[in-house]
Amino acid sequence: MLKTKTAKESLAVMTNLVLPNETNQLNNMFGGELLARMDRISAISAKMHSGSLQVVTASVNHVSFNQPIPLGSTVKLESKVTRAFKTSMEVYVDVFVYNYEEEKFTKTNDAIYTFVALDGNNKPVEIPELVAETELEIERYNAALRRKQLSLVLAGRLNPKDANELKALFLG
Amino acid sequence: MLKTKTAKESLAVMTNLVLPNETNQLNNMFGGELLARMDRISAISAKMHSGSLQVVTASVNHVSFNQPIPLGSTVKLESKVTRAFKTSMEVYVDVFVYNYEEEKFTKTNDAIYTFVALDGNNKPVEIPELVAETELEIERYNAALRRKQLSLVLAGRLNPKDANELKALFLG
Amino acid sequence: MLKTKTAKESLAVMTNLVLPNETNQLNNMFGGELLARMDRISAISAKMHSGSLQVVTASVNHVSFNQPIPLGSTVKLESKVTRAFKTSMEVYVDVFVYNYEEEKFTKTNDAIYTFVALDGNNKPVEIPELVAETELEIERYNAALRRKQLSLVLAGRLNPKDANELKALFLG
Amino acid sequence: MLKTKTAKESLAVMTNLVLPNETNQLNNMFGGELLARMDRISAISAKMHSGSLQVVTASVNHVSFNQPIPLGSTVKLESKVTRAFKTSMEVYVDVFVYNYEEEKFTKTNDAIYTFVALDGNNKPVEIPELVAETELEIERYNAALRRKQLSLVLAGRLNPKDANELKALFLG
Amino acid sequence: MLKTKTAKESLAVMTNLVLPNETNQLNNMFGGELLARMDRISAISAKMHSGSLQVVTASVNHVSFNQPIPLGSTVKLESKVTRAFKTSMEVYVDVFVYNYEEEKFTKTNDAIYTFVALDGNNKPVEIPELVAETELEIERYNAALRRKQLSLVLAGRLNPKDANELKALFLG
Amino acid sequence: MLKTKTAKESLAVMTNLVLPNETNQLNNMFGGELLARMDRISAISAKMHSGSLQVVTASVNHVSFNQPIPLGSTVKLESKVTRAFKTSMEVYVDVFVYNYEEEKFTKTNDAIYTFVALDGNNKPVEIPELVAETELEIERYNAALRRKQLSLVLAGRLNPKDANELKALFLG
Repeated sequence: MLKTKTAKESLAVMTNLVLPNETNQLNNMFGGELLARMDRISAISAKMHSGSLQVVTASVNHVSFNQPIPLGSTVKLESKVTRAFKTSMEVYVDVFVYNYEEEKFTKTNDAIYTFVALDGNNKPVEIPELVAETELEIERYNAALRRKQLSLVLAGRLNPKDANELKALFLG
Repeated sequence: MLKTKTAKESLAVMTNLVLPNETNQLNNMFGGELLARMDRISAISAKMHSGSLQVVTASVNHVSFNQPIPLGSTVKLESKVTRAFKTSMEVYVDVFVYNYEEEKFTKTNDAIYTFVALDGNNKPVEIPELVAETELEIERYNAALRRKQLSLVLAGRLNPKDANELKALFLG
Repeated sequence: MLKTKTAKESLAVMTNLVLPNETNQLNNMFGGELLARMDRISAISAKMHSGSLQVVTASVNHVSFNQPIPLGSTVKLESKVTRAFKTSMEVYVDVFVYNYEEEKFTKTNDAIYTFVALDGNNKPVEIPELVAETELEIERYNAALRRKQLSLVLAGRLNPKDANELKALFLG
Repeated sequence: MLKTKTAKESLAVMTNLVLPNETNQLNNMFGGELLARMDRISAISAKMHSGSLQVVTASVNHVSFNQPIPLGSTVKLESKVTRAFKTSMEVYVDVFVYNYEEEKFTKTNDAIYTFVALDGNNKPVEIPELVAETELEIERYNAALRRKQLSLVLAGRLNPKDANELKALFLG
Repeated sequence: MLKTKTAKESLAVMTNLVLPNETNQLNNMFGGELLARMDRISAISAKMHSGSLQVVTASVNHVSFNQPIPLGSTVKLESKVTRAFKTSMEVYVDVFVYNYEEEKFTKTNDAIYTFVALDGNNKPVEIPELVAETELEIERYNAALRRKQLSLVLAGRLNPKDANELKALFLG
Repeated sequence: MLKTKTAKESLAVMTNLVLPNETNQLNNMFGGELLARMDRISAISAKMHSGSLQVVTASVNHVSFNQPIPLGSTVKLESKVTRAFKTSMEVYVDVFVYNYEEEKFTKTNDAIYTFVALDGNNKPVEIPELVAETELEIERYNAALRRKQLSLVLAGRLNPKDANELKALFLG
């Protein structure tokens, strides 16, 4: 049996500038560039948790761009695995921008990616269970199941009536 | 009052190769590259529908990568606005890969982006209503409202009990 | 014997934005970027017509940049094979820029590429004959022979006196 | 009156490697990458000859890719202005690949670009006359006029019957 | 007077993958790519320490590439300011590669950059003093002075005989 | 025994523009871009001198960025091997910017790289001795030994007291 791992063990951090060739016409960070960085950092968390050298993006959940990130910003992405399923795992990415006046990072965005880990023959491998420790990790661990059900419902692979976790949300 | 526009008027097509610097270690198209291309083509549909020179990505909905796209593939992205809300619009992107044996494109993925159109002062502008014509356009037009409700629920800006369109799905 | 194919079957379309890292100091699309996009889209037409997974650029004919394409433009490239020779084929690329005032694309440039298709051992393979159908396709089909003669003359591989098609142009 | 300049004064040299992200599926240099490098080096010659800080590519003449350039190659581009017209100038680029066995560069390709020089208001400026000195420079200086006529004929701006230099080629 | 800051307050971390277009022919990370990443992360530390929105690289000290970093590696860069001089500051970057067998990062390289912070008129600004706290921070703080002397000697701006800190090293 | 080669035989020249996506927020050439170009051109000199198809960067010595290089500049890098040791060689890169007023190149920077040449099994190979001819080549040839000693001292692989060449500098 695979040993379990804590969420913290999969923490990956990517701090980087926003340079001119990463901005759109409004001189804000280009959405595609942020998506690409989030894809890379969440893949790292997925690799560290699964111990697999090959992980592939299975899906990107809802990503909001509420706040433009201007040219020259210092952007920090933090990612952690939130929950492991049999052969897939969910990774949560938090995006922060450094505020030079207040000398601290402020959260601007987040995103949720799902990855599958592959073996040498490109077959999915089993993934160690994840142990959530902090309050936030536990909250995200629980929400991960609802998101998985939602994803299966949207893909037509789960009858909405059988999505118990999700259903509870609407019926309360 | 703004004149309405048909979904078809916002159709944008981007066909492109998958070159070596756009692939991951498995020699398949890098997820981030596909996300970036989808961001660009859906922005074009949003610009054509809104008539605005500036549109910004507000969110990326669930994107699945069910099928790897190998190096050298010919990838075609087709995007169309599915529904316009007051100051935002939803864009649907279908991804196809050319099958050289069968001499035709086969669908592999899709993605849904939401855009806001801005005026010269970077304020959101009102967007023309969209007229869905084909069966598929109408189906996506209707689903767009459920997705908007879901998005508001997930962001905590709509009480699940008030998301009527969405609730119906679970209660049927 | 190889079956023939129509020009239309090789039609490939690439719509894309002009982003900041694709512009020169005048904030217009960088010539090299347009050449690279034209190379990619015409390679796709060549692959679709020849059915070969490997095509290589043999030459780029005269390309004019009459009109600068400013930052933020929506640029559409349309390419089609114009004529197939024994182991090479000519591809015509038309470049259009979207005019947001008039809500339509306007032609700005064109270019002509020649490709060779290769088999698994990197040897040139025979290419299906092309059937031109529309008036424009037929006009370009005929001109393709004159261009081929011109190319051979310029390369010193054809005596100008034997370039009958071409000679007729000057002697009328 | 503008002082004249020699061809040699506009000589620009760009030596560079062919790296993995500049190759196609056959592990040879990607056509678009070579075109982009040629565009840059010829722009430098055009800037040095015209003394203008802004030059724009007006056209690319026939470019042949007779010989694949493999990954890891050392590629040298040499460009020189061949002839100045009133507000445009032609630049010739020679492409060489280093042969490590023979310890010398071997010519593989060439290309001809035409540039226009602009002033601060983006208006074309007058260009100094070019003085060809070597035998090759003189040959290319003479051929430049024929190419200009050909270009005007192809663009429909010169009647083939009036293209005297060019006509002579076919009538001998 | 400017308040002092601890070394720790300038800590910046950039974890990232090595993708195919960042490798050389041996499938190891391209030296230039590592230099560029080190430049970015050390600039972030310099910005956080100086509180300035504009910092420019003044010099890169000796950087060793003792150990190749293969394709697919997870590379972590950690940078901290080591010492502030009047208008310049030295930043130390440690490079680590994740070892998937041992589930931990191993140090492979380091590099030292010097930055100048600029005000809105591009004039150098005064930089807060740095307080070294840990043993390693203190060791690097002391060495920074010797490196500054060495740099001035190499640039011919300090007589070797006056470089007391450095001289002591050789005379013991 | 390997034949010797002159410094001049390893001369490599790379002239290139500074384009928008190669600049920082101040519209000056991005430090990382200059480092990457210097890495490429010095690798070419190392390959030409060693006759090896594979060379890897062993270290980058002190590089100064005394002078910003603005957008649109024409930058020329000239590199030459300065001295060969048993299995490594030092390469000196001089950086020049073209001054359009004075119609000549002016030196702005320099850098020193060390390379190792590898055989087909990635083992270091012996490198031909270098013959310095001009006064500058001889001066750099002599300084190379002092730099090598300094590098060994800094890496803790040579006792400062045994670094005779270097010691002389301080004791004079």
